[in-house]
Amino acid sequence: MLKKLLSQITEPDKKAMERAQIKWDNIAKPLRSLGRLEDMIIQLAGITGSENIEPRKKAVLIFCADNGIVEEGVTQTSNEVTAAVTENFTKGIASINSLSRVCGADVFPIDIGIARDMNCKGLTDRKIAYGTGNFLKGPAMTREQAKEAILTGIRLVEEKKNECYNLIITGEMGIGNTTTSSAVISVLTDSDPSEVSGRGAGLTSEGLEHKIQVIREGIALHKPDKNDIIDVLSKVGGFDICGMAGAFLGGAIYHVPVLIDGFISAAAANCAVRLAPLCAEYIYATHVSAEPAGRMALEAIGKKAYLECGMCLGEGTGAVIGAKLFDFALAAYNEIIVFDDVEFERYELLK
Amino acid sequence: MLKKLLSQITEPDKKAMERAQIKWDNIAKPLRSLGRLEDMIIQLAGITGSENIEPRKKAVLIFCADNGIVEEGVTQTSNEVTAAVTENFTKGIASINSLSRVCGADVFPIDIGIARDMNCKGLTDRKIAYGTGNFLKGPAMTREQAKEAILTGIRLVEEKKNECYNLIITGEMGIGNTTTSSAVISVLTDSDPSEVSGRGAGLTSEGLEHKIQVIREGIALHKPDKNDIIDVLSKVGGFDICGMAGAFLGGAIYHVPVLIDGFISAAAANCAVRLAPLCAEYIYATHVSAEPAGRMALEAIGKKAYLECGMCLGEGTGAVIGAKLFDFALAAYNEIIVFDDVEFERYELLK
Repeated sequence: MLKKLLSQITEPDKKAMERAQIKWDNIAKPLRSLGRLEDMIIQLAGITGSENIEPRKKAVLIFCADNGIVEEGVTQTSNEVTAAVTENFTKGIASINSLSRVCGADVFPIDIGIARDMNCKGLTDRKIAYGTGNFLKGPAMTREQAKEAILTGIRLVEEKKNECYNLIITGEMGIGNTTTSSAVISVLTDSDPSEVSGRGAGLTSEGLEHKIQVIREGIALHKPDKNDIIDVLSKVGGFDICGMAGAFLGGAIYHVPVLIDGFISAAAANCAVRLAPLCAEYIYATHVSAEPAGRMALEAIGKKAYLECGMCLGEGTGAVIGAKLFDFALAAYNEIIVFDDVEFERYELLK
Repeated sequence: MLKKLLSQITEPDKKAMERAQIKWDNIAKPLRSLGRLEDMIIQLAGITGSENIEPRKKAVLIFCADNGIVEEGVTQTSNEVTAAVTENFTKGIASINSLSRVCGADVFPIDIGIARDMNCKGLTDRKIAYGTGNFLKGPAMTREQAKEAILTGIRLVEEKKNECYNLIITGEMGIGNTTTSSAVISVLTDSDPSEVSGRGAGLTSEGLEHKIQVIREGIALHKPDKNDIIDVLSKVGGFDICGMAGAFLGGAIYHVPVLIDGFISAAAANCAVRLAPLCAEYIYATHVSAEPAGRMALEAIGKKAYLECGMCLGEGTGAVIGAKLFDFALAAYNEIIVFDDVEFERYELLK
């Protein structure tokens, strides 16, 4: 099933990209002077197959799940916070809700594995299990669960596309998920856990040392095979990471751009790109997370962020700010007059 | 007159900044997790003297002026483009107009020295002269004109504050103004013109070599005194740079935050900070210009940008995108619930 879906991913439309570049070069401003905002739109033309780009209807998919590894004391707060904050998403009172209102994005919290039953209106129930297992005691999940969580992310993008959303913003909520993300990135990039682990939502230096040790033990115990992403995810990953990896793959399958948020989201994007390398062409980085390996996790898949705000809140908060850049770039692309309609001379591209 | 105004500039309100930090730390999210967006608001508290921060009403002040040095062939287009694009600002069809609509900012083009008479509704006439002189033949302007242009910028901020604007975005339009900016930055930072000059709106490699030579000759001819900013500005500056320097100073005098746009704007901010070092506390960087010395001009006054978009369009286009970040930061600061109102445990700041 997953293999069949991934085989549908194609190269972006290079002809549409060339036409978008020509359209930019006809706009009355110094050539290429909007820099990466121009590239952003050219990439969109490749994704959608047309140089005519409509305004973006934006959906934030927040993958909420618990992590068994929290038992080992790798976090400042208990895993009850996952459910409590998820409930706040549905009430519109969390960080991502405020920022999404400024961006003009709709927020969709998804229970993909919260450790207790949830009963709130506005929460999409796609629970795979009541949290993952503690990866020091066994694999975090089964291979089947990992694949099911990835398919869940893919299907959510399809659903949102059918609801006319054409920009997907990834987000997550899950106490312990910087631990699982660091474990995944450590395996995928052959880095020592000490190089790719941080304080998450506020560990002490001692707590960080312990977290690194836990990750090191988990990897030593399971020896995940970095060439088998399902192996890595099922052994030391989380349902949120799987779901987000699915969202990135879904973007490539259904020709919808998907935005990376912070470190956890970038770990998921790394998994997606390993599963289907062409998927990278459908993904955008947004901001550089303050987590120590935030930048490295983007560079590992050839992505460069637009924003350097030192954020590490999660929930999609950095990506929803980055999403606003699409509105700016599209306003420039679609509204600024072209050289043919102005009285002054055309700029030329010279070397 | 200028000296008297500058003597009114005071330190930001440290007590208000501390109260703003306390307010952030009570908001229900991992502590400090909004990173530089938190610092942005804390700086605003210092500027305004209160931790209660209202939404920002944003004004883009576009200083439009011609530069005599264009005679020397340092640009791709003729100086007629300055007037033509300025007219487009008043018609709402230029790049900055589109981007300002997305941001929710009002655009105010100002004729501070366009080379011909302008007759367009919506253009604020503060013309100092019909362009500057060619600085290879004499000083660009008199010392009195430089001071008058700076005072013009200061007064414009006062006027906008009286119209209830509380965020000033700087912008400029003036063919030849990367040449004057590179000359100013070369003098202020003791850099060779080759290190701080770029292709502006599209010079060839040969054209860039010529531009560097022109700047080098201008500096050799006038020997501007880097410890006397009025000397530097009058000899190799421009009316737009002077006006923007005034806007930065006006921000500090009238307690209004002012945003740097690109390289020209950063050159002006460098002049302002040399005239009144405390002024730096009232200034924000926004994006890193693609001009070669864009980053260096910010670092010279201790500023770090939020955006890395490779833009070099001018007009205030980068700053107006950066201005949107204030809306995001303020939404978080004013809307997210506090720990006392949530059911989960408080995060703590640990080391």
